[in-house]
Amino acid sequence: MIKASVIGGTGYAGQELIRILMRHPEVEVVTIGTRSFSGQKFSDVYGNFEAVTDLVCEATDIKVLAEKSDVVFLALPHGIASKTVTAGVLEKTKVIDLGADFRLKDIDVYEDWYKTEHFNHPLLNEAVYGLCELHREEIKKARLISNPGCYTTCSILSLAPLLKNNLIDTSSIIVDAKSGVTGAGRGTITELMYSECNETIKAYKIGSHRHTPEIEQELRLLNGQDFNILFTPHLVPMNRGILALSYAKLTADLSLEEVKVIYKDFYHDEYFVRILENRMPETRWVKGTNYCDIGLTIDPRTNHVIVVGAIDNLIKGAAGQAVQNMNICFGLAEKTGIDFIADFPI
Amino acid sequence: MIKASVIGGTGYAGQELIRILMRHPEVEVVTIGTRSFSGQKFSDVYGNFEAVTDLVCEATDIKVLAEKSDVVFLALPHGIASKTVTAGVLEKTKVIDLGADFRLKDIDVYEDWYKTEHFNHPLLNEAVYGLCELHREEIKKARLISNPGCYTTCSILSLAPLLKNNLIDTSSIIVDAKSGVTGAGRGTITELMYSECNETIKAYKIGSHRHTPEIEQELRLLNGQDFNILFTPHLVPMNRGILALSYAKLTADLSLEEVKVIYKDFYHDEYFVRILENRMPETRWVKGTNYCDIGLTIDPRTNHVIVVGAIDNLIKGAAGQAVQNMNICFGLAEKTGIDFIADFPI
Amino acid sequence: MIKASVIGGTGYAGQELIRILMRHPEVEVVTIGTRSFSGQKFSDVYGNFEAVTDLVCEATDIKVLAEKSDVVFLALPHGIASKTVTAGVLEKTKVIDLGADFRLKDIDVYEDWYKTEHFNHPLLNEAVYGLCELHREEIKKARLISNPGCYTTCSILSLAPLLKNNLIDTSSIIVDAKSGVTGAGRGTITELMYSECNETIKAYKIGSHRHTPEIEQELRLLNGQDFNILFTPHLVPMNRGILALSYAKLTADLSLEEVKVIYKDFYHDEYFVRILENRMPETRWVKGTNYCDIGLTIDPRTNHVIVVGAIDNLIKGAAGQAVQNMNICFGLAEKTGIDFIADFPI
Amino acid sequence: MIKASVIGGTGYAGQELIRILMRHPEVEVVTIGTRSFSGQKFSDVYGNFEAVTDLVCEATDIKVLAEKSDVVFLALPHGIASKTVTAGVLEKTKVIDLGADFRLKDIDVYEDWYKTEHFNHPLLNEAVYGLCELHREEIKKARLISNPGCYTTCSILSLAPLLKNNLIDTSSIIVDAKSGVTGAGRGTITELMYSECNETIKAYKIGSHRHTPEIEQELRLLNGQDFNILFTPHLVPMNRGILALSYAKLTADLSLEEVKVIYKDFYHDEYFVRILENRMPETRWVKGTNYCDIGLTIDPRTNHVIVVGAIDNLIKGAAGQAVQNMNICFGLAEKTGIDFIADFPI
Repeated sequence: MIKASVIGGTGYAGQELIRILMRHPEVEVVTIGTRSFSGQKFSDVYGNFEAVTDLVCEATDIKVLAEKSDVVFLALPHGIASKTVTAGVLEKTKVIDLGADFRLKDIDVYEDWYKTEHFNHPLLNEAVYGLCELHREEIKKARLISNPGCYTTCSILSLAPLLKNNLIDTSSIIVDAKSGVTGAGRGTITELMYSECNETIKAYKIGSHRHTPEIEQELRLLNGQDFNILFTPHLVPMNRGILALSYAKLTADLSLEEVKVIYKDFYHDEYFVRILENRMPETRWVKGTNYCDIGLTIDPRTNHVIVVGAIDNLIKGAAGQAVQNMNICFGLAEKTGIDFIADFPI
Repeated sequence: MIKASVIGGTGYAGQELIRILMRHPEVEVVTIGTRSFSGQKFSDVYGNFEAVTDLVCEATDIKVLAEKSDVVFLALPHGIASKTVTAGVLEKTKVIDLGADFRLKDIDVYEDWYKTEHFNHPLLNEAVYGLCELHREEIKKARLISNPGCYTTCSILSLAPLLKNNLIDTSSIIVDAKSGVTGAGRGTITELMYSECNETIKAYKIGSHRHTPEIEQELRLLNGQDFNILFTPHLVPMNRGILALSYAKLTADLSLEEVKVIYKDFYHDEYFVRILENRMPETRWVKGTNYCDIGLTIDPRTNHVIVVGAIDNLIKGAAGQAVQNMNICFGLAEKTGIDFIADFPI
Repeated sequence: MIKASVIGGTGYAGQELIRILMRHPEVEVVTIGTRSFSGQKFSDVYGNFEAVTDLVCEATDIKVLAEKSDVVFLALPHGIASKTVTAGVLEKTKVIDLGADFRLKDIDVYEDWYKTEHFNHPLLNEAVYGLCELHREEIKKARLISNPGCYTTCSILSLAPLLKNNLIDTSSIIVDAKSGVTGAGRGTITELMYSECNETIKAYKIGSHRHTPEIEQELRLLNGQDFNILFTPHLVPMNRGILALSYAKLTADLSLEEVKVIYKDFYHDEYFVRILENRMPETRWVKGTNYCDIGLTIDPRTNHVIVVGAIDNLIKGAAGQAVQNMNICFGLAEKTGIDFIADFPI
Repeated sequence: MIKASVIGGTGYAGQELIRILMRHPEVEVVTIGTRSFSGQKFSDVYGNFEAVTDLVCEATDIKVLAEKSDVVFLALPHGIASKTVTAGVLEKTKVIDLGADFRLKDIDVYEDWYKTEHFNHPLLNEAVYGLCELHREEIKKARLISNPGCYTTCSILSLAPLLKNNLIDTSSIIVDAKSGVTGAGRGTITELMYSECNETIKAYKIGSHRHTPEIEQELRLLNGQDFNILFTPHLVPMNRGILALSYAKLTADLSLEEVKVIYKDFYHDEYFVRILENRMPETRWVKGTNYCDIGLTIDPRTNHVIVVGAIDNLIKGAAGQAVQNMNICFGLAEKTGIDFIADFPI
């Protein structure tokens, strides 16, 4: 059994991760770390764990956890992991970081978008970007995995085949993404109160969301070119799910069928990417799962290709992909413990 | 592997059942029977099954299925099962009926509440009422199991210890229950349209809902007395879940702690019943699970005991309990394949 | 024009009140008092007021407002109004208090339920309980009106005719009420976050909610007897509306038609009470209005009468009734400025 | 008083229109025409009209209504109005058509997108496109007004100043729009059931929605050029509201402040268009109102201007604008009867 600990276990992503790990056949959850609820039974913080676990939240330290864990997951606000993860820690345990600290390879880009200094250049170089479908071989050997953001995962998987194959005008890429409210976390701010986000929709941080450079970094890697994208997130009145529409001008003269073939080839062996034939993705079909659903269309009137991607922001966009990374890293079958079918209607 | 078939697989309960069965370690789903979608891929009817199964819906017959199935689940409107299930069928296969046809033991009561004739008295006598916590021993030996209704399951489990122990005035029982919209099924009627039930709540069929006699039948069995209850259902703007408040005048002089002890004793060995200590049930903590959460309080000002019960209407109230019945019936560990932790927030 | 000021104008009820007053043909809003947002444009706090008003929130004092206002509305947490409203203030202006400080006539009851001392016995005696349908004549002459709570308004209007006419066993009264989330106010607590109350329902403060003694006070007044009721509130995943089911054993031998006649007689001249004939109340039909819809049924199996009441918690349950009180108090037609038809579906 | 009739009064838009007309100070609603509910009291079809009106739905004819109405509103599926509105009708009454039949001036475009023949070329030429802010002078003199679609209104108002002033590359226009479920009407189809659209989001008819040519027609008129746009609608789990994001490459070298000035100039005298300074539009602030809120931003990294527009699909996108058209047409103050402030939170 893999001994796993989670730091930041009482946020939405951390809690989702613990739920998955507790039903994973090869994992034992040894410690739930959290400062805010230290000393409380985890099942008192989250009622879904009633009678499931007696674990008590602990205000613990990654160094301590490294001694008794085969893997430590971090689900923390940015700026903490880069200070606490050290080479010493990585000699004792694998670390899978769900936060942003090790995602951006260019420190200037990180510091520019996050408005904070980065204190750990060496580990930034070592960290592997944990988008499983694109970096599987590196993940296998990694000690420190930086789990991608939710919008990021959906956007990159949506656009990767187009960029890899040089099929679009890179100056024309727009990603218009919509997220459920859990994507904003559990912080008690007015904007996230029930009656403030129920029955309304808004766009926010248009062109300025921190997932933008992360998407650009990975798309440029695939394509070799330097370009910017325009990324817009929205807050949608639902708990879960991301739907991202990616727009780009086609440079190649391709039929919809040809584009679909390219996508199916690109994701041929990927269990968690479903290229849809007869319908467009909807978040309900991936909710509670680790799937990324992708649908494609071409608008001949404006010569655009439109890619529709859908994921569960807390699973493929966070906890599920973190476990997928763990599975890869520990040599398990990649779908172990995360082979969910969406529960519907839920 | 248990070969299982489902008739009525494209309703909400049937589809939920198929989802559970497809991840059950001891089951193989052999046939999905449905008249409405015959010939269509099941994953075209329900997008959550994309890449999960290639099964095609069949307009099939229970006699045919009995030949090739160890168990046949029926998820049909009332009036069909009583006509199609026969002694011949039961010689070949176990039948677990999620519908109402075999629930009420008194034919007059059935015909009075359902306004239809019942055609199968012998099997009505044979059928076992599949509320697992109350009828486990009979279920073990049953060929025909009648799975309880959703409101019913929640209400009976909430009140059973009080009636078994004769603690309340049976003329004072009121059950005020609230259900998510999936409880009403998938029929396309105006009242169930999104904009008709979103952002509103209503009570319906006050004192006249068909689950009333079912609750009464089981409570009377526990208590030996004859009495009526007042049952009120509500439609709540959410997909899943039932919350039932049961009110009754205490006849015994008991403290809240004493009542809790009685409940904990009654459900001592029940994996799927959680008697809550520090909080009251909320549907979110049981959503997607087979749990029934129960909370208790006493109002000394009016001398009432109030029992709060919560279940997932499609799982413990339908598909999950059906699989629990199957597990009991086939000698499997009762929680096999249904040991879910609620995914939150979803 | 009536010069009106609102203190506590940035809570949900205060803001709703300002919206109504700004379209009231006989009112000019002169001041919006609020401590939290002092100095900010009201339209920056609530975007619905963009281009509607340039008023700036002020951290002001009731004494100052009394000088320049014909009426001052208070929408404050309990414990403040009883300290700031004085005889001197009431010599200058009418005060309509949406809070709890002047609702309970028995100081012991107040202090027992609110766990705080009451500092203003004289004004408590003077204050008129502003349930318009029951206290209209007193309201006409009042200087200080105590606007009822939301659950209270719905529950009292539902039960008043039964108690006035002595038709029920007063020891059997149960009110099972359900409220939208705005009823809990705008405080940023975890329990009121979108993803915490969306897609779930819970009961809370069973038998211990502070509206209980308020309902009892008014029902006892109608009936002359002393009795307790059992009151249970629920939190429902919707923004607006209260649905209250009142259960009681009938002592009289009455048909449903006879009960309906009694209700229609009781509310014969009441513009804002609608006794429904052909349907049961649903919150959607009163949302955004000052109506209280009432439906009736009798369960002969248990000899209970069930009254279903529905209101908009922020209008008839708060701001609308406050304006109705103002209209009565200032001799205007009672429906002036509050004669809304529910906008549907919204 | 203007005598007004509505045909198609039991759809969502028709019903909303009747609600507005019934509180309009200069209007008397004389007839509610509807085939489906003929003979039923309107308040039995829509419970919000309980005690508000005793009007009974009639299966009536536009010719009959023309005799007794000053204005007839049509809220019908496409293909009916073009057959029933005649020159004879227009000699007796004004007609405001909320449907699509008279919106597209080019018959080929109409027939191509609607897959049906158009039978009324002469009236198509006469009909005035009722986007009040753009065609006010023509509307004043019109006999037949074709009320714009909901997505259309929001998209055109969002983009008009950019095209009028030639500031963008017309080959780069993408409108990504999101609508509440009422936009899809009241038809009972599976996709619009509560549990099918709750807690999920989807895009539909990408590049092929029928509002596309309507937007193009009006934008080309402003600009004089011929170009196509890419329009994508989404279904969002909420009752009301449209949020449209319009993306385009800037051809001019303009600062955000300069673009804002251009918008403020363009809409300088428009009561119902609010150019936001300090926030971005959200549908909640326009819900229940006739406002169109517009926010602007520029992404210097990709040189795009992004316009965010928000309306209430049933008011500014249908019934409210229809009344605005009526007001203009009959010489009333334009905001008469539609000067709503958004009720919040609702």
